[in-house]
Amino acid sequence: MSIVAARGFRASGVWAAIKGSGKPDLALVVSDRPATAAGVFSPNRFRASQVDAAIGKLKESGGKARAILAVSGCANALVGRRGFRDQARLSRTVSRMLKVPDDQVMFSATGPIGMRLPVDRIERGLVKAVRELSAAPAAGLLAARAIMTTDTRPKQAVAHFTDGGTRFVVGGMAKGVGMVSPRMATILVFITSDARVPAPALGRALRAAVKPSFNSITVDGQASTNDTALVLANGAASSSPLSAKGQRAFGEALAEVCMSLALDLVRDGEGAKHLVDIGVTGAATAADADRVARSIADSPLVKTMFYGRQTNWGRIAQAIGASGALFSPDRVRIRVGGQLVVRGTATVPTRYTILTRLAEPEIRVEVDLGAGRASARVFTCDLTEGYVRINAGYLS
Amino acid sequence: MSIVAARGFRASGVWAAIKGSGKPDLALVVSDRPATAAGVFSPNRFRASQVDAAIGKLKESGGKARAILAVSGCANALVGRRGFRDQARLSRTVSRMLKVPDDQVMFSATGPIGMRLPVDRIERGLVKAVRELSAAPAAGLLAARAIMTTDTRPKQAVAHFTDGGTRFVVGGMAKGVGMVSPRMATILVFITSDARVPAPALGRALRAAVKPSFNSITVDGQASTNDTALVLANGAASSSPLSAKGQRAFGEALAEVCMSLALDLVRDGEGAKHLVDIGVTGAATAADADRVARSIADSPLVKTMFYGRQTNWGRIAQAIGASGALFSPDRVRIRVGGQLVVRGTATVPTRYTILTRLAEPEIRVEVDLGAGRASARVFTCDLTEGYVRINAGYLS
Repeated sequence: MSIVAARGFRASGVWAAIKGSGKPDLALVVSDRPATAAGVFSPNRFRASQVDAAIGKLKESGGKARAILAVSGCANALVGRRGFRDQARLSRTVSRMLKVPDDQVMFSATGPIGMRLPVDRIERGLVKAVRELSAAPAAGLLAARAIMTTDTRPKQAVAHFTDGGTRFVVGGMAKGVGMVSPRMATILVFITSDARVPAPALGRALRAAVKPSFNSITVDGQASTNDTALVLANGAASSSPLSAKGQRAFGEALAEVCMSLALDLVRDGEGAKHLVDIGVTGAATAADADRVARSIADSPLVKTMFYGRQTNWGRIAQAIGASGALFSPDRVRIRVGGQLVVRGTATVPTRYTILTRLAEPEIRVEVDLGAGRASARVFTCDLTEGYVRINAGYLS
Repeated sequence: MSIVAARGFRASGVWAAIKGSGKPDLALVVSDRPATAAGVFSPNRFRASQVDAAIGKLKESGGKARAILAVSGCANALVGRRGFRDQARLSRTVSRMLKVPDDQVMFSATGPIGMRLPVDRIERGLVKAVRELSAAPAAGLLAARAIMTTDTRPKQAVAHFTDGGTRFVVGGMAKGVGMVSPRMATILVFITSDARVPAPALGRALRAAVKPSFNSITVDGQASTNDTALVLANGAASSSPLSAKGQRAFGEALAEVCMSLALDLVRDGEGAKHLVDIGVTGAATAADADRVARSIADSPLVKTMFYGRQTNWGRIAQAIGASGALFSPDRVRIRVGGQLVVRGTATVPTRYTILTRLAEPEIRVEVDLGAGRASARVFTCDLTEGYVRINAGYLS
């Protein structure tokens, strides 16, 4: 259970015939009482109109939301003014059906870009989705399935914390798994909590949680037009505000849920076989550390190397050397799976056991630039024929 | 014919047992008289020691070179100080055998990173290579074959110009075809001319020719540690200096050779099925134009789309929108194969004939940002399972 793990939230997932496959494609998440809300959104200049709408609504309402409608199978991006009208109409429909203010309905969509939403079918699907709203774990799972596109499995996470004797829940769901890039919240992420958290504090906690999680993963270096991370907190577990300690505990629980969902996204990256965890230390600046970590993470040569379980460490050095970061090559150390593989400008003969490490589902790369004290950590996956097949055939 | 098309140059290509396959892996190019020389080199901070050596020698000699030794099957990069000693020894051997000054011998290598050069085998191969030096086209072709790694075919080009009644030749050869990135001369490119061109003018002409050719192509956005473009001009066709008009004609011939070789590299990009020619106009600044063109060119989603002959134009918009360039999405126009496919924030229904265009070996993408007068042009190839297979299995 996840999106409905927090008290006072119900969800459903149904098939609204957006996808031809008959798989769930419409998720609805509703808080049974007013909730504060915060979001992080795509900075892509071609971002979808519902992303702009959500940003505007959160601003207008001062950070309140009651319902999230999310559809998969159509991104409602790059469809001109119709896209804006379509999402506005669906939002009004949800508002009417659930009797909640229109500016507290968040609409999200994911799927191919450039196709119009089948609004009538979605409205018919909504009738069923409202009827099936439930706090049962099975309903949360259906909602998590209904936002999937090329994901091979649903992503859910839950964390708990206590404050003043009350046990609170933070639960969430997310979908990927292509056009997944760093520099922002990625794709669709929805999180609920039954704690009472003022909207500004919720926003700060979300941004802090997103940085090391969704902002530190990359599948293919591509920044989607629809990326959205939303968190709703409804205070259903206790109407008293959290203590200062409780707020920190909430932030930690939120961070835990975000990290768990983010790593699940990378593990399920399109065609992925390995999670690659890249840590950079000893950089002169934080920007340099980030640059080096992302240069490695987005290198198709590094990614295919890990797929093929190769030991061609020069590809990692190439990515570091071309990153634009300042350092002295002589002082660089590269470790893979705990083994030193590059010392300065020379590769180090590696032990045979490296092959066992490369066969594991998670591989750790550690780079010490020897140029300062700044560090960064980015998670990526390998690049396989599967990624090419999925993306050469998607929307044919 | 190509590298030996210009008078006064001889070449050879032999197997020195660097590659296990028995295919040629050692190329030698020699000018029979003093020649001016200029080069453009990798800016990668982990670049190979022979790249540093070549830069130093050209500086010391004031822009002179007599011979180029190029080997494939080993990059001599990331091998510490041994790499420097190995390349220096090979250079001295060539100097002794050909009786030319050591600082006029250029050494280049390409292949897997992190392996030591088999110096003894290369010296044995050199004996044969010197014996087989020839101005015959077949010798030039063997040299072009001897620098190939994952290339599926040799790349040669030749252009002519006249000045004061004399006909001059510019000929060249190049190899790719992975770790091919923009921002610099790429991989190995060797060009010869029988014109007499002072070294500073030669350098200027080379840099001007490299910008729209080798600096405007990308296979996988990866900047190699060994990239080198060298041009030698020996005045064998006429000892008189070129006229001002002749210098311009030389620059044009050099640019033609560079462009021809660069496009051949992209066409033969690892696993490539299509050449994609990306033109960006209407940008606010040249940097923005370049940023947008490269963002499209290096997008794995755009590259797999062209491989799969898909019409998911949103992927191009996504790459433009995430590039960081400044523009108003409403004013953007995207054309593919001459057809308008995106107008502002909406896709345009495309005619069925677009599928015929997508099946052609060369596809033109035109983006008008509607934000100014700057433009850029970048060439790339599609991304196929072939790229993944080549790079997951290379050096196993």
